[in-house]
Amino acid sequence: MYTIQKIGIIGSGNVATCLAHALQAKGFFIDTVFSRDITHAQNLASQLHGTKATNNLHALDVNLDVYFMAVTDDAIIKTASQIKLNGLVVHTSGSVALAVLETQPRRGVFYPLQTITKNTAPNFEQVPILIEAADKTDENILLQLATSLSNRALLANSEQRQSLHLAAVFANNFTNHLMGIAKQILQQSNLPNDLLNPLILQTAQNAINNNPFDVQTGPVMRNDIETINTHLNLLQHYPQYRQVYELLSGSIGALKHQKKV
Amino acid sequence: MYTIQKIGIIGSGNVATCLAHALQAKGFFIDTVFSRDITHAQNLASQLHGTKATNNLHALDVNLDVYFMAVTDDAIIKTASQIKLNGLVVHTSGSVALAVLETQPRRGVFYPLQTITKNTAPNFEQVPILIEAADKTDENILLQLATSLSNRALLANSEQRQSLHLAAVFANNFTNHLMGIAKQILQQSNLPNDLLNPLILQTAQNAINNNPFDVQTGPVMRNDIETINTHLNLLQHYPQYRQVYELLSGSIGALKHQKKV
Repeated sequence: MYTIQKIGIIGSGNVATCLAHALQAKGFFIDTVFSRDITHAQNLASQLHGTKATNNLHALDVNLDVYFMAVTDDAIIKTASQIKLNGLVVHTSGSVALAVLETQPRRGVFYPLQTITKNTAPNFEQVPILIEAADKTDENILLQLATSLSNRALLANSEQRQSLHLAAVFANNFTNHLMGIAKQILQQSNLPNDLLNPLILQTAQNAINNNPFDVQTGPVMRNDIETINTHLNLLQHYPQYRQVYELLSGSIGALKHQKKV
Repeated sequence: MYTIQKIGIIGSGNVATCLAHALQAKGFFIDTVFSRDITHAQNLASQLHGTKATNNLHALDVNLDVYFMAVTDDAIIKTASQIKLNGLVVHTSGSVALAVLETQPRRGVFYPLQTITKNTAPNFEQVPILIEAADKTDENILLQLATSLSNRALLANSEQRQSLHLAAVFANNFTNHLMGIAKQILQQSNLPNDLLNPLILQTAQNAINNNPFDVQTGPVMRNDIETINTHLNLLQHYPQYRQVYELLSGSIGALKHQKKV
């Protein structure tokens, strides 16, 4: 067991905020919050116990145990080029390689695989945390930290993490967009917009409990050309959604065909 | 209150099976199950109490109270053209107009808005049921039946039901396909395929609790061209998925642009 005494949080956005709260709730001490905007840093620090706020990177104590760099992908590179910290520096991004932190003597990645907004603070126990580090000791420190927050801590190299992030774009960003289109269609038909909620939940449950390709349903799977044409017709004034409908129907059809062959 | 004494089930697939069980559980008597395949009819009838099975449409008692025609869209038209029943005949399809049943003196629609497979029998109390009927008395009978199964019974005309079915294709069929792609990406990176499950559930929760367009995240929303290029590169050997990625990113970007304008 390693003793993590003091943690620095670089960033004050959704991930920084949720992570700081989750770490403090598990007994870790957040020493300082850095943000380029001092009011953001102060706002987050004021929610924590005995935490300092700064907007000056060079005022940051270089000897904290772990620094979480929870900032945009661009800002990770920029920030890492401006300071050299003695403690373990980790970023929290799915798509940025560990190598980007090579300016830091000790570096790692601590990627919580979840959609995180301040309003929907996740229960971290349920959030898989993917760990990578430049050496074994730091890897173990991060695994220990991740295990104290989550039931699911695992190692993933930068390449795997990139693929996982790509998968998350399909499973979250794209599905969310489609559900937005669905709700808009309801609205335009004067139907209550919560009508799809049970379907949305069941769809997620089915995708969790099965290989989604094995439980695919819909007009394409039934070769129901008439319904497809009705739908395309309903979308005639929405060329963008019509194109999405056509392409996704084609993609489902292509997989169905592959399975048969 | 109307007294529904005897129900006929035409069909033996997923919807027919779940509906028959749900109706019986609420105290309705399923008199007969019809299926073109007598073993299918017998199989479903044997799961019920005192229910007959037949594969002969003309052997069906024409004086049952309500007939549920839970068969494929094509078969609804075909079946309705072959018999004339005195009771109330309803189909359970989202995409078929009520008018298709015009051969029947009393007709209606009873559409459960949920993805229904025999393995994932839904809790009908949570399933919205959309009702349409050719006259007010039959509409009330169907509302009464729907209310006894579900907390959410509502009227929708054929046009609204078609739009709702289109919306359901986006919210279920298409999102399921994308989650299948996501899980396939994990598999190809030797990552455990349940890793995305918390994200999938949270995505559904967020889409339920918000207008999904308002909580859209991802590389397109952040103008993160570098990540988009990395993802397109990862998909270089999967032209079909790459096309889906490009189109959906474009669709998200177009909405983002509209909002800004």
